[in-house]
Amino acid sequence: MSRPGPLSGFPEFLPADRIVEQHVLDTVRRVFELHGFASIETRAVEPLEQMLRKGEIDKEVYVLRRLHAPADEPDSGLGLHFDLTVPFARYVVQHAGQLEFPFRRHQVQKVWRGERPQEGRYREFTQADIDIVGRDTLAFHHEVEVALVMAEVFRALPMPRAEILVNNRKLAEGFFRGVGAEDPPAVLRAVDKLDKLGPSRVAELLQAEAGLSAGAAERCLALAGIRSADTSFVAAVRALGVEHPLLDEGLAELEAVVAAAAARMPGAVVADLKIARGLDYYTGTVYETRLVGHEDVGSICSGGRYDALATDGRTTYPGVGISLGVSRLLGVLVGRGLVRATRSVPSCVLVAVTDEASRERSEHVAGVLRARGIPTEVAPSAAKFGKQIRHADRRGIPFVWFPGAAGEPDSVKDLRSGEQGQADAGTWSPPEADRHPRVVRVDPTTPEEGTR
Amino acid sequence: MSRPGPLSGFPEFLPADRIVEQHVLDTVRRVFELHGFASIETRAVEPLEQMLRKGEIDKEVYVLRRLHAPADEPDSGLGLHFDLTVPFARYVVQHAGQLEFPFRRHQVQKVWRGERPQEGRYREFTQADIDIVGRDTLAFHHEVEVALVMAEVFRALPMPRAEILVNNRKLAEGFFRGVGAEDPPAVLRAVDKLDKLGPSRVAELLQAEAGLSAGAAERCLALAGIRSADTSFVAAVRALGVEHPLLDEGLAELEAVVAAAAARMPGAVVADLKIARGLDYYTGTVYETRLVGHEDVGSICSGGRYDALATDGRTTYPGVGISLGVSRLLGVLVGRGLVRATRSVPSCVLVAVTDEASRERSEHVAGVLRARGIPTEVAPSAAKFGKQIRHADRRGIPFVWFPGAAGEPDSVKDLRSGEQGQADAGTWSPPEADRHPRVVRVDPTTPEEGTR
Repeated sequence: MSRPGPLSGFPEFLPADRIVEQHVLDTVRRVFELHGFASIETRAVEPLEQMLRKGEIDKEVYVLRRLHAPADEPDSGLGLHFDLTVPFARYVVQHAGQLEFPFRRHQVQKVWRGERPQEGRYREFTQADIDIVGRDTLAFHHEVEVALVMAEVFRALPMPRAEILVNNRKLAEGFFRGVGAEDPPAVLRAVDKLDKLGPSRVAELLQAEAGLSAGAAERCLALAGIRSADTSFVAAVRALGVEHPLLDEGLAELEAVVAAAAARMPGAVVADLKIARGLDYYTGTVYETRLVGHEDVGSICSGGRYDALATDGRTTYPGVGISLGVSRLLGVLVGRGLVRATRSVPSCVLVAVTDEASRERSEHVAGVLRARGIPTEVAPSAAKFGKQIRHADRRGIPFVWFPGAAGEPDSVKDLRSGEQGQADAGTWSPPEADRHPRVVRVDPTTPEEGTR
Repeated sequence: MSRPGPLSGFPEFLPADRIVEQHVLDTVRRVFELHGFASIETRAVEPLEQMLRKGEIDKEVYVLRRLHAPADEPDSGLGLHFDLTVPFARYVVQHAGQLEFPFRRHQVQKVWRGERPQEGRYREFTQADIDIVGRDTLAFHHEVEVALVMAEVFRALPMPRAEILVNNRKLAEGFFRGVGAEDPPAVLRAVDKLDKLGPSRVAELLQAEAGLSAGAAERCLALAGIRSADTSFVAAVRALGVEHPLLDEGLAELEAVVAAAAARMPGAVVADLKIARGLDYYTGTVYETRLVGHEDVGSICSGGRYDALATDGRTTYPGVGISLGVSRLLGVLVGRGLVRATRSVPSCVLVAVTDEASRERSEHVAGVLRARGIPTEVAPSAAKFGKQIRHADRRGIPFVWFPGAAGEPDSVKDLRSGEQGQADAGTWSPPEADRHPRVVRVDPTTPEEGTR
């Protein structure tokens, strides 16, 4: 075949960068499961009419057709899922009789959107979601919980500082109603354009399209400008002099989220009252996440509370969820060279082969090391030892093992220090830090670790 | 939404069965990486012309179209991959300049085929592949290696005994030439129908379609009947009195595979000279795998040696690979009730909540346990303790933690024994076997473990 090229929007990693991705996915799963979230996966496809149940699909869905289908056969009626929330809602309703509620699940899968690709925006990408779903009711404290679980994920990863920005839909709607808005969603739509249009243009929109007075518009803009990492935002909102029972409820909830986060994970969660999360169906806390220093890629982790994640007509399932954009995060970590793997292969040891007749001897050593949990490969050919050492070095394998001649002990060489010493496969262990590849931050101010 | 149903051919697991799947995937990855295979993933889609490069696609490929594409816009030209070999071959050629050869990779991903679903045959399923690929050359000993890696996977899983059946294309072709066949592929096609048509009908085919004499046809059938778990098959083949240099080469290779396997993993690999692996492009050892007692599902793990996995015109990349059908294996393990998870959630401990005012106290206990690697969740409501215990019991969570009143010590209750005792979150640990859910074989002759 002629040299094939990459497909725009469908990222692929070389082995060393895939180790970074595996590390992120392993960490995400470990933290989620420490918090008792059960893993599920849903099929990659959903019937289009399921995706359409909200009346429209604004996402660019990929529809499937069988290549060998007769020309007059319609599409399969199946589309690739464009997020993990719609499939999860379907899963909950379909399997409700076999699930225990509240149901805590995590789901880490690829999703697809036929959008125009750009940095941080892909056609195939991985999301890592947690949701907690109740039957009929779901306690508010879970809205605190999911943000803190994600903050714990961020703390466990070698990544720039992330700030989870929180707001509350009740707070916003109560405030808008308190200033006299008759169409709070119209106010939300206008405020959502603040970053794009700037405050004076949004003030115009608030009057022209949401029917607010000039004074009311000004107070809505003042609300959107409030931001604090502690609960001081409460006094700032109160100072705007707006009263509404829904505002009180929303303020109390947001205060609870921020207070709990400030106590348990200081700095991780910030109240930011301009966060709107578009026109989605959220009804309480909403989340967005900025990577400090990399705000240009947009939110890497978003979600919120929805009073009706799903319903089967008789039962309603309220939920709260948050979704980490794994591919977008990796686009920063790998694409901007912030982290790297300490080697490109899992192997910790390469066992040299003295001559092809004694390959079985080298295989035996490798088997003993593997049985003790040490990733090991055997040299592919009985080339000169110098060539076998280069084979290990090019892959970043730290140790080369030399089986001894008959009656002689084995020896092992650390390729970084050059030190070589006697060793027994039944007892020798590498330093724990060398057993598996590690993912480390690249510090641009010091020489690269491991340079030889 | 109305109650949605399953989609035929797109299996989904409930959380407890997903734990079984995770265990299989974790085990596969652990063994592959112990042997130094680096993980890669390729995008889910390939350009159709890449898939077509062999001249035809006999698989039922799903082609993608954007839902909102203009009516006159053609298909995207992209199809979902139907295996992991074609994408891997493309990856090798595309990235050859950045890979080190021989390149050892594992790849565990979903693939899609629009086939008619039946037991063990899905439209969406997971494969777990290992391949070793060389540049220009690849040593024979890797044909021994990949079979033994898979045998180690089987040994590490709670599954029925698997037999990897091996044959060798050189052996077959040399034998067929040695009996006078002028079109060895035609002989292979006929022999491949043995299971379906039986020997007398195949003997007719060998004469009518492959142009063999009655005696030659009989010897080909005799060859296909040879099977041994040791190297005695060599004498059995020799006894048929056929001579050809390619037969000698193939016999020596197959003998080496079976001898090494018999020495290192007795019983795991069996020479079976009727294995043909269809009309694929194999050129040396070929593998199929039967699950003993579940032969009806077909091969759960297949592959072989190919002298040209890929080529870019100037360089050829020979390879050897073997692919585990994870979904097919799970269809047996889960679908036939052979194994189960010891609980349906990751949580080892449920921390009870005495009243909502003291939820923070329970959260603190949970945080201390999690920091020590113990998966823990906090009760969703401060219901009566009996109800909180039932919450844990229904999910199979083995321990419920009761924070003590002010000044009083905490206590922890083992729900299986009913024993309750004082405990300190900073030092208490569960038995290692309880920390994470385990996957255990279901023995139909004894009462289910863990029945309470």
